[in-house]
Amino acid sequence: MFEKVALVGIGLIGSSLARAIRQNHLAGHVAISTRSPETLKRAEQLGLGDSYTTDAAEAVRDADLVIVSVPVGASEAVAKQIAPALKPGAILTDVGSTKLSVIAQMQPHVPAGVHFIPGHPLAGTEDSGPDSGFADLFRNRWCIFTPLPGTDPAALERLSEFWRRCGANIDTMDADHHDRTLAIVSHLPHIIAYNIVGTADDLQTVTKQEVIKYSASGFRDFTRLAASDPTMWRDVCLHNKDAILEMLARFSEDLASLQRAIRWGDGEKLFDLFTRTRAIRRSIIEAGQDIDAPNFGRQVAEQPAKP
Amino acid sequence: MFEKVALVGIGLIGSSLARAIRQNHLAGHVAISTRSPETLKRAEQLGLGDSYTTDAAEAVRDADLVIVSVPVGASEAVAKQIAPALKPGAILTDVGSTKLSVIAQMQPHVPAGVHFIPGHPLAGTEDSGPDSGFADLFRNRWCIFTPLPGTDPAALERLSEFWRRCGANIDTMDADHHDRTLAIVSHLPHIIAYNIVGTADDLQTVTKQEVIKYSASGFRDFTRLAASDPTMWRDVCLHNKDAILEMLARFSEDLASLQRAIRWGDGEKLFDLFTRTRAIRRSIIEAGQDIDAPNFGRQVAEQPAKP
Ligand SMILES: NC(=O)c1ccc[n+]([C@@H]2O[C@H](COP(=O)([O-])OP(=O)(O)OC[C@H]3O[C@@H](n4cnc5c(N)ncnc54)[C@H](OP(=O)(O)O)[C@@H]3O)[C@@H](O)[C@H]2O)c1
Ligand SMILES: NC(=O)c1ccc[n+]([C@@H]2O[C@H](COP(=O)([O-])OP(=O)(O)OC[C@H]3O[C@@H](n4cnc5c(N)ncnc54)[C@H](OP(=O)(O)O)[C@@H]3O)[C@@H](O)[C@H]2O)c1
Repeated sequence: MFEKVALVGIGLIGSSLARAIRQNHLAGHVAISTRSPETLKRAEQLGLGDSYTTDAAEAVRDADLVIVSVPVGASEAVAKQIAPALKPGAILTDVGSTKLSVIAQMQPHVPAGVHFIPGHPLAGTEDSGPDSGFADLFRNRWCIFTPLPGTDPAALERLSEFWRRCGANIDTMDADHHDRTLAIVSHLPHIIAYNIVGTADDLQTVTKQEVIKYSASGFRDFTRLAASDPTMWRDVCLHNKDAILEMLARFSEDLASLQRAIRWGDGEKLFDLFTRTRAIRRSIIEAGQDIDAPNFGRQVAEQPAKP
Repeated sequence: MFEKVALVGIGLIGSSLARAIRQNHLAGHVAISTRSPETLKRAEQLGLGDSYTTDAAEAVRDADLVIVSVPVGASEAVAKQIAPALKPGAILTDVGSTKLSVIAQMQPHVPAGVHFIPGHPLAGTEDSGPDSGFADLFRNRWCIFTPLPGTDPAALERLSEFWRRCGANIDTMDADHHDRTLAIVSHLPHIIAYNIVGTADDLQTVTKQEVIKYSASGFRDFTRLAASDPTMWRDVCLHNKDAILEMLARFSEDLASLQRAIRWGDGEKLFDLFTRTRAIRRSIIEAGQDIDAPNFGRQVAEQPAKP
């Protein structure tokens, strides 16, 4: 599809892209660049690309497609670094979990003639680094573009086709709406998960050993999210601040009202909320976004753990 | 092990017990009782026991072991109903998710000579009713007893052996400690999950369809817990009020501080919390309480959903 693709950043997302490009024959040459010599060496050992450099500008030279996959807080520095080396007509995109901030950081540096199309594949795991990627990460997942006014439709279609060949389904929306939507479906859940695990960690009346031992009763469902990469999530919190604070305010308000219902023994109110939330679960399963295995989908996998 | 076991309540837990008793040959006769004729009929169609009645007193007559598996708020009414029919020397136990309240509701009605041993198997799914049970539900899960002072050690050992043969591992602690522990490992996670799903449901800027469509980015992990039985969870909230309110207060305090860190852009504080919580996840996996599959353990199951 492309003669040369440059991947700037080769962690979970970048290395999954490298593997998907290889598997689906999407590029003649894959140039890999990452900040640290250690990560670069690991990428080379894994054979993820065709050329390797810690100099991002060198990697993007002559590339038809440049994909930046670094923590969102590093977007501006990377944009500055690569801007002078970008080829006219090239497509520049990213995979960052927040979009308004990435656009504000990168767009001013993009030279005329380069098609900058911000993107975000909704696919991830709790792992990070080049070893954690896999070619199927994007399969049947959404990739959201938040194109700027005046974006070349042909460039957008070419990038969309690239992601479709990586297995993704394409959506477009404006960056502001993206950031609010992700604040509720992804950022708030992660923040709440980090928070509850932190609360449990601080308790004195119940020991950490007990929390771990009995975690299957609900707690462990939060620990996966709370094991996600700290750098990435710090940057998400700092760079989608407004939408996150808005969702947090609503969540806290609702929680205060739930707390009051518990305090005053308002069983009817509790019952109503607990009933309403079931419908969403059903819709998620109908939409194919989760499986309906009992025991929280862990039944089969757990049996062998029996000592 | 027992000549006659009576199961009062035949939902997820009761029917799983019925199946485990059958599979492991733990009783000569299983008497089943439930409140409604519909559920009773379904239990009979499923062939879960040897005799069926809506009269709990009739079911427990001559039973050596009586297991009450109803929502915790119904404990007192059931205790009153069955007390006069309990056989001297019988073991009476329950499976309720809260213990101080169940003890307060049941103990005053237990006749002398009957061994009342409160219990709680930490095993469940988001489903309910007699169809949802399965014999392996308790396998490799904890069953916690909160014995009262003066409990007959022989009766406790006999009941423990019964649960071990159902696959469970046994623990004992006092009821107060049980209620606090469960408040953090189970009750708070469920309440938070119900709350976040409720918050998302109420949003106007992001539609319900969008929440469902993009739920795989974190949100869906909460929807399983938030699909649990409303009656059971209403009762848990009402009957473990003090411990739950205490945990909620701590959680809210921590969340306020996290919110402040986001508002003021305190990246260091965010990074520290997000790093600390990872350790707990590792311990849970080491303790065999969850699996370490990437993509939140759903990788394999999800692939076939591709349209
Ligand atoms: N993980 C997910 O679930 C997920 C899902 C969707 C989107 N995203 C987005 O994808 C992007 C990358 O995430 P990831 O999970 O692939 O991260 P990752 O596995 O931690 O990899 C991060 C990559 O960025 C580089 N990097 C880190 N800090 C940098 C800095 N200050 N300047 C320049 N390069 C830096 C790293 O280089 P070195 O190792 O050489 O330092 C590495 O190559 C983030 O913007 C994230 O928001 C993540
Ligand atoms: N589900 C879990 O994850 C889980 C885990 C551990 C412990 N527990 C505890 O186990 C107990 C039962 O839960 P479950 O999941 O088995 O519930 P379930 O599937 O909903 O079954 C409830 C049973 O209790 C009966 N019942 C409901 N309300 C009653 C009332 N007011 N008076 C008398 N009987 C009543 C029902 O009878 P009818 O259908 O005939 O009305 C049914 O037989 C609860 O105390 C719960 O806290 C549950």
